[in-house]
Amino acid sequence: MRIRVEWRASCSLTGTVLKWLAVPLTAPLLLAILDGDDPLPFLVAIAVTIAVGLALEQITDERELGQRESFLVVALIWFSIGFVGAIPFVVAGVGSIAHPINALFESVSGLTTTGATVMEDFSAHSRAIMLWRQLIQWLGGLGILIVAIGLLSHLMVGGAQLMETETQTRNVTKLRPHISETARLIWGLYVGLTVLAICVFYGLHVAGVAENMDLFNAVSHALTSVATAGFSPEPDSVGAFSPVVQWSVMPFMILGSTNFVLLYYITQGDFERPLQSEELRFYLGTIVVFGTIVVAILLLDSNPGLDGDLEATVRHGLFNVVSLITTTGYASTDFDTWTVGAKHMLFLCMFLGGMAGSTTCSIKSLRWVIVLKAFRRNLFTVVHPEAVRPLRLGDSVVDEETVNDVFSYVLLALVIFFLLTIFLVVDATRAGTGNFNEFAALGAAASIFLNIGPAFELAGPMDNYAGFPTSSRAVMIVMMWIGRIEIIPVLVLLTPAYWRS
Amino acid sequence: MRIRVEWRASCSLTGTVLKWLAVPLTAPLLLAILDGDDPLPFLVAIAVTIAVGLALEQITDERELGQRESFLVVALIWFSIGFVGAIPFVVAGVGSIAHPINALFESVSGLTTTGATVMEDFSAHSRAIMLWRQLIQWLGGLGILIVAIGLLSHLMVGGAQLMETETQTRNVTKLRPHISETARLIWGLYVGLTVLAICVFYGLHVAGVAENMDLFNAVSHALTSVATAGFSPEPDSVGAFSPVVQWSVMPFMILGSTNFVLLYYITQGDFERPLQSEELRFYLGTIVVFGTIVVAILLLDSNPGLDGDLEATVRHGLFNVVSLITTTGYASTDFDTWTVGAKHMLFLCMFLGGMAGSTTCSIKSLRWVIVLKAFRRNLFTVVHPEAVRPLRLGDSVVDEETVNDVFSYVLLALVIFFLLTIFLVVDATRAGTGNFNEFAALGAAASIFLNIGPAFELAGPMDNYAGFPTSSRAVMIVMMWIGRIEIIPVLVLLTPAYWRS
Ligand SMILES: [K+]
Ligand SMILES: [K+]
Repeated sequence: MRIRVEWRASCSLTGTVLKWLAVPLTAPLLLAILDGDDPLPFLVAIAVTIAVGLALEQITDERELGQRESFLVVALIWFSIGFVGAIPFVVAGVGSIAHPINALFESVSGLTTTGATVMEDFSAHSRAIMLWRQLIQWLGGLGILIVAIGLLSHLMVGGAQLMETETQTRNVTKLRPHISETARLIWGLYVGLTVLAICVFYGLHVAGVAENMDLFNAVSHALTSVATAGFSPEPDSVGAFSPVVQWSVMPFMILGSTNFVLLYYITQGDFERPLQSEELRFYLGTIVVFGTIVVAILLLDSNPGLDGDLEATVRHGLFNVVSLITTTGYASTDFDTWTVGAKHMLFLCMFLGGMAGSTTCSIKSLRWVIVLKAFRRNLFTVVHPEAVRPLRLGDSVVDEETVNDVFSYVLLALVIFFLLTIFLVVDATRAGTGNFNEFAALGAAASIFLNIGPAFELAGPMDNYAGFPTSSRAVMIVMMWIGRIEIIPVLVLLTPAYWRS
Repeated sequence: MRIRVEWRASCSLTGTVLKWLAVPLTAPLLLAILDGDDPLPFLVAIAVTIAVGLALEQITDERELGQRESFLVVALIWFSIGFVGAIPFVVAGVGSIAHPINALFESVSGLTTTGATVMEDFSAHSRAIMLWRQLIQWLGGLGILIVAIGLLSHLMVGGAQLMETETQTRNVTKLRPHISETARLIWGLYVGLTVLAICVFYGLHVAGVAENMDLFNAVSHALTSVATAGFSPEPDSVGAFSPVVQWSVMPFMILGSTNFVLLYYITQGDFERPLQSEELRFYLGTIVVFGTIVVAILLLDSNPGLDGDLEATVRHGLFNVVSLITTTGYASTDFDTWTVGAKHMLFLCMFLGGMAGSTTCSIKSLRWVIVLKAFRRNLFTVVHPEAVRPLRLGDSVVDEETVNDVFSYVLLALVIFFLLTIFLVVDATRAGTGNFNEFAALGAAASIFLNIGPAFELAGPMDNYAGFPTSSRAVMIVMMWIGRIEIIPVLVLLTPAYWRS
């Protein structure tokens, strides 16, 4: 069999990206030196990533990548950075994340902006290690933004091409026809948002209303808010901070989950296009609806620590709904102690996701908009079989193949989530895992595969994934990777048709 | 608003069906008289069904029903027979099913061929009551066959129109253009299969290898085998009988879940068409694959009562897989005591279902065949976006709208199952239901909505649904009804477009 895919060019490009990973690695290196901590973990990682990167680059000079190669490149980049990102944890050798599987779990969970952690004692680690954990999430968010807007929107990946329709991405990318130019534009917005978040968070500290939001925490949480990623150096997540901080984190999670092309229009003073976006309305609508439902349940049921405090009830209800819908995965309180109704509403939120073309994960509102429109249209057609009623998004007609693509994607995601749940149950029972039940498995499977972070019970927001069997954690690493790069690129690599002409 | 639906004609036709329900009601009436039991429960039911039937018939003489009215007729018939079927249980006033909600649950569970029971003490009831319970399932199976083949295959209901493609139903229905002629043909096959089952089961008794399979039991189990319905007068279901009976029940469950148009061809000596059916191959394939997996798990894990007995292991593994895939819901043993891996495989079987155009429930193999083909095709299109590759079933091209219909249906079914699960959890927690957990809810929701019958834990095959809160049982009644008539007719009735011109 002759392989027709330009795998050499794909490896070479991956090498370049790995080489450049040395630059962000200097940030925790400098912090380690500043704090008088061991710089070795980062020196080793820098050495490895440059060496492997340069070696891969040598494979070929040819860099012409077709559409088919882009799937391979995306899969390879996320895979290899996941490995390099684990090196500092292993070399530092501190705590549970020193174990290679755990180190890889933490690194992949970071890079995929999942934010599920296996770290047990947060205080045992140096600030440099904690910063690296935050930074790899921020890089993962940036990477997915570039891939989603610059690449996926041109490919047929589960209806991602529809983003084009909603945002006229091409109007932007046509002006800047090279992916590198689109990347620069996104990079500017992303950095700008991050800097704004740092200023707001640290500003609250300076203003005296956020005692423990020092510069380190401000930077750390800015990095993982706009990346909707969810790691926090605090074991209590955003619950460690004052109410005003919790309120101020919410807009950044929401912005991080908003289509960056729409954000770009807004920075250009064009508010018309965002206002016309059906996806944006749906996305904000889900936050309002689920926020209201959860707050209502919290008010009706008796929940520890919330009773009689209206502001706290609204804040915690809304915060955790926003955190899960945007797939950030922060927690403002241990929502695992809430009543079963509230917890199941949060569970449903996990399947929504923010907007396509953002740092968000999960199924995403664009796909749900299409699914709901197709449901309505199909019901209408049952009554009026003679009527031809194409599905519309904004001013454009969505062709039936694309609707199929979206349905395929949503159904595939649900089936994989379901099978992962069953695997986790069987594996935990086999291993005799304590404090485990079916709901823990459902939550963990959704949270891992949809790249959210925390779930319930064993995987609760104040707990960690170290309680799962090693075999489960190994499978979770793969599932976070598959989920983050939107399933299809991995499946495509597994089809023989991909490798043949 | 002017209502354009011929609701008068729909009510009138429902009246006729109700009137004729008096005929099957004479069977348990005669048995009650024969056994010296109280005939009143059946006399009341007969009086009510004739009176209501005649009254409804008077509404109009006009019987011209369009496509739109058929949805209303189906919904009305299943709804009203469910009520009449409950009358004997209430009038008899014995045991848990004397309570109106429970009586309705038992009746609707029967009519929808679900087979979930709220009966607690089986021995407290007369044979006449037990026979009515079996007979209503057989009638439900017959009703759905006529609706599925005579009606749904012409309408766009979640891809049901594809059955046409696979079986060339029209070749049969064209020869017999009126639904009444198709009905007679199906009726003949259905009665024939039932009589054959009676002969086989009772024959085993006569041959001395099935001690407790007396004529009453033979008739009872024949009625609910070919209807893939699952009620049994024995509290231990088919587990009450000898191994040879268990083996001999399996082919009837499989036949009951086979497309009856294909069965008709076979009776005409035409084996070519069945052999060409992709759906038939897929359906039998799922039985083989899941049967093998479950038997393998039973052999690998330690399971009470099975260890070291190969025949029993294969028999119980296969029987319960067949029972759940065909959506019959018999149990040959308490599979709820099996290991978690085996139980979860059985759980997955619930979502499969037999063939379209049979008495089976659940999602059905035809839809899964389309979903899998669409998955494969869509993956191919990702790699070869320029390729136009229509989806084929047999020799025909399936248009994209129909693929969408199928996707809509499957996704809708999964979403409703999921929401029902959450409702059951929240409701049981509110009511303080004991022995309840998330897996019990998942199983019960699937089993009720997909019309299977038993599930796990609280809803296990040797247990009953009386343990659920009354509110849950009330919702289950509605969900069995919605699930059995394939969701869409109910949803259609809820859309304003249905009632307007
Ligand atoms: K996350
Ligand atoms: K059943």
